[in-house]
Amino acid sequence: MNAAKADRIPEDEASLQLNDHGELRHLLTLEGLDMPLLVDLLDDAEGFLTPEDNLPARSDALAGRTVANLFFEPSTRTRASFDLAAKRLGADVLNLDVNTSSRKKGESILDTIYTLEAMRCDIMVVRDASVGVPAYIARHVKDHVSILNAGESDVSHPTQGLLDLLTIRRHKGSFADLTVAIVGDIRHSRVARSAAFGLQTLGVGALRLISPAAMAPDADDMPFANIIDNLDDGLADADVIMALRIQRERIPNLDGIPGPDEYFASYGVSRNRMRLAKPDAIVMHPGPMNRGVEIEGALADSAQSVITEQVANGVAVRMAVLERVAKSLERR
Amino acid sequence: MNAAKADRIPEDEASLQLNDHGELRHLLTLEGLDMPLLVDLLDDAEGFLTPEDNLPARSDALAGRTVANLFFEPSTRTRASFDLAAKRLGADVLNLDVNTSSRKKGESILDTIYTLEAMRCDIMVVRDASVGVPAYIARHVKDHVSILNAGESDVSHPTQGLLDLLTIRRHKGSFADLTVAIVGDIRHSRVARSAAFGLQTLGVGALRLISPAAMAPDADDMPFANIIDNLDDGLADADVIMALRIQRERIPNLDGIPGPDEYFASYGVSRNRMRLAKPDAIVMHPGPMNRGVEIEGALADSAQSVITEQVANGVAVRMAVLERVAKSLERR
Amino acid sequence: MNAAKADRIPEDEASLQLNDHGELRHLLTLEGLDMPLLVDLLDDAEGFLTPEDNLPARSDALAGRTVANLFFEPSTRTRASFDLAAKRLGADVLNLDVNTSSRKKGESILDTIYTLEAMRCDIMVVRDASVGVPAYIARHVKDHVSILNAGESDVSHPTQGLLDLLTIRRHKGSFADLTVAIVGDIRHSRVARSAAFGLQTLGVGALRLISPAAMAPDADDMPFANIIDNLDDGLADADVIMALRIQRERIPNLDGIPGPDEYFASYGVSRNRMRLAKPDAIVMHPGPMNRGVEIEGALADSAQSVITEQVANGVAVRMAVLERVAKSLERR
Repeated sequence: MNAAKADRIPEDEASLQLNDHGELRHLLTLEGLDMPLLVDLLDDAEGFLTPEDNLPARSDALAGRTVANLFFEPSTRTRASFDLAAKRLGADVLNLDVNTSSRKKGESILDTIYTLEAMRCDIMVVRDASVGVPAYIARHVKDHVSILNAGESDVSHPTQGLLDLLTIRRHKGSFADLTVAIVGDIRHSRVARSAAFGLQTLGVGALRLISPAAMAPDADDMPFANIIDNLDDGLADADVIMALRIQRERIPNLDGIPGPDEYFASYGVSRNRMRLAKPDAIVMHPGPMNRGVEIEGALADSAQSVITEQVANGVAVRMAVLERVAKSLERR
Repeated sequence: MNAAKADRIPEDEASLQLNDHGELRHLLTLEGLDMPLLVDLLDDAEGFLTPEDNLPARSDALAGRTVANLFFEPSTRTRASFDLAAKRLGADVLNLDVNTSSRKKGESILDTIYTLEAMRCDIMVVRDASVGVPAYIARHVKDHVSILNAGESDVSHPTQGLLDLLTIRRHKGSFADLTVAIVGDIRHSRVARSAAFGLQTLGVGALRLISPAAMAPDADDMPFANIIDNLDDGLADADVIMALRIQRERIPNLDGIPGPDEYFASYGVSRNRMRLAKPDAIVMHPGPMNRGVEIEGALADSAQSVITEQVANGVAVRMAVLERVAKSLERR
Repeated sequence: MNAAKADRIPEDEASLQLNDHGELRHLLTLEGLDMPLLVDLLDDAEGFLTPEDNLPARSDALAGRTVANLFFEPSTRTRASFDLAAKRLGADVLNLDVNTSSRKKGESILDTIYTLEAMRCDIMVVRDASVGVPAYIARHVKDHVSILNAGESDVSHPTQGLLDLLTIRRHKGSFADLTVAIVGDIRHSRVARSAAFGLQTLGVGALRLISPAAMAPDADDMPFANIIDNLDDGLADADVIMALRIQRERIPNLDGIPGPDEYFASYGVSRNRMRLAKPDAIVMHPGPMNRGVEIEGALADSAQSVITEQVANGVAVRMAVLERVAKSLERR
């Protein structure tokens, strides 16, 4: 898996994401996207947030367009978030459960894409367990099609990264003085990687990646971050703490992986341990949570938790991305 | 299961259903809802019925709102009925197949709900195999969210109860002089219970619950009904006969349960046996039917059968409920 | 299977498809539909084609109507194509995954249909593995309901046939001088049969059905076609070549069926072999493709290939059929 990570050419993916006018056309990874573009996306997303007892924001920016959700891995929350974001922008949405149909008949992924393209699915939201699939698809689609990465193996989940950035910005303002601590299975987490690259671009003060050795990233994967194996050290004076689920489905050999209780004792983020962080620190989690494993349930429900805000921000961020790539397709 | 039934506190659930203005906000059970409210809902539903060769009724009462169908048990007809009811009121609809996604990752049901709430799913339609889940959820959601019970273990299926009431009222007018006979697996049927409590509230003349001993309800569960084990006795001079499917999936030990032929011989509702009922008696079934087991196929297709009317009334009743809870959310 | 084919009464199905005004009400099979009607459908479909970088065509011809996709066999492309066609005409769409719900509870197919009919699904798109199911359903629905066959065992797939006709017409103009060669598992292919009957009605010059003996049709099934077992002979001077997938799921005994390499050597359509056909011959495939088995990948991606055009034409043809049957329901 890390071999595959190393095989990627992020510069190439980054340039693939912009059209000839420098506008975002595909969203494959946050790596290589510059600060002004990220800030623009966060600003756009803010515009889609409304008070929680109002009706959600709507527009007709995608009227007449078709968004296809093409999930080769199961998903509830990300699929639902893209589905609602697209519908609230007026798009038609096609949800494909790809595990149970054409793939059984032996069709290649590109032929599935060409089929959707011919049906005029202008925007395809793709989740896949293999590294490089969204970029591979983006290299092959026609000019009127945009590819959005909704989760790519253990390497990239850019809309999750954006919603994490938006959540932090809304609570903390600027990034320059912040210490952000990501705790858990960093090695197998696309969430951690996308947040990390986005934070780096926005000039985060310090980024700490905290995990047992078996879940630590390769030293050269995110060289701008501090790799730490002691949770107490990692939490000290942090402003933002993000807890991660152990990605058991992506770990080839689970022998060295601690059980839930053992893990919680060493790496569980709890109210007690949060005393080491800044008093106004916020706690994040991408979901789904395993309460009592990577995060104490009472902390997840506490005033420090911004976990449901992350979900709300996720819809707003996806609306912002959808609107922006749709505009780039028009400008083409 | 009956232990669990006994553990419920219906008074508490009933009061939970109304907002501070006395309006219906959640629909969890028909127990405790008063006659004027039930009559209002049936009247509203009548307004959504159109001649069957016209286009179905539509409105924009739910425009801008999102309805989430959250089915933890498989369903075709109830899910489809809520889906169409919501779409015909202008809502966005999110259908979640919960068996195959987040639950595998160990997420708690409340965290799934909090996620949907953050995505601005204002109305959640919930089906679950465990007693108390809809009320449990209703106690935890925010003020801008409404919970509709679409089937709760063996205890409650309130929109089914309402559609049964509407079907009876359209054929028989008032309830005071009616004898209603429900036949079959009463013990494991949420359909029977919801119809029974609704009929009791509307002042039904007599309610008979007819089944073999192994499928009879506890004597104190519906004390207003007559428990009868002989089908001929139960059908005598009845105005309304409702046949029920054996809920094999909810019966822990199937040893004492008769096979199809044996069951039909003793408890199958047939044209022949219908001669014991009033000449203008109607025959109902909540579907899906097992023809030749609990009901004779030719009877289901006869002029006495109102089974497809029940389905049509189901969409109308769900539109009425959706419209009403949406209004209560606005009034909040 | 061929016994079942022989049991059908196509004349009867053909007459069932038209209402009293001679308008298309159900689409069950292309057999028996006359040339003017097929030409009208192709003309209508042309009107729904737009340049591929424009937004897709839309109308409100189905506003207020509900289309139910009732697929008893899994499908991605045909289901998606009908879904998008219906949505782009303004319909509400209900997608039912019938394998996982009511059928488990023992409901008959007609009771499922009656349920959807009562919910006001005016147009039902049905795919089923058994011969005769669409016609059987069409004989039982009410006057306000239309049935569209989306794939029926190995006998009929009429919208696929129409999209094949449209694709050929757009490239070749008239049919009278054309030689069309269909290559592969003719015996088990509903695609081949529907294309063959449609081509025959439109007066195709010559139709060749090319396959190994085990996959050849019965001699009397399509008596107007030439059955050929040598691929080179079949391709000679052909204008149109359609390659087919081996329908392994429909072949009772796979013992005599060649492996992929052996099959490709004898019956794979390749660039090399295409030299036997006319220089401007086009290559078609209904998808999903098995590259390197029935078709060479490089040929599928070549300028001669019209495979993705078939997909685009599929949406247009389905829009044309939906619009036309909806009009017939109004006229009733």
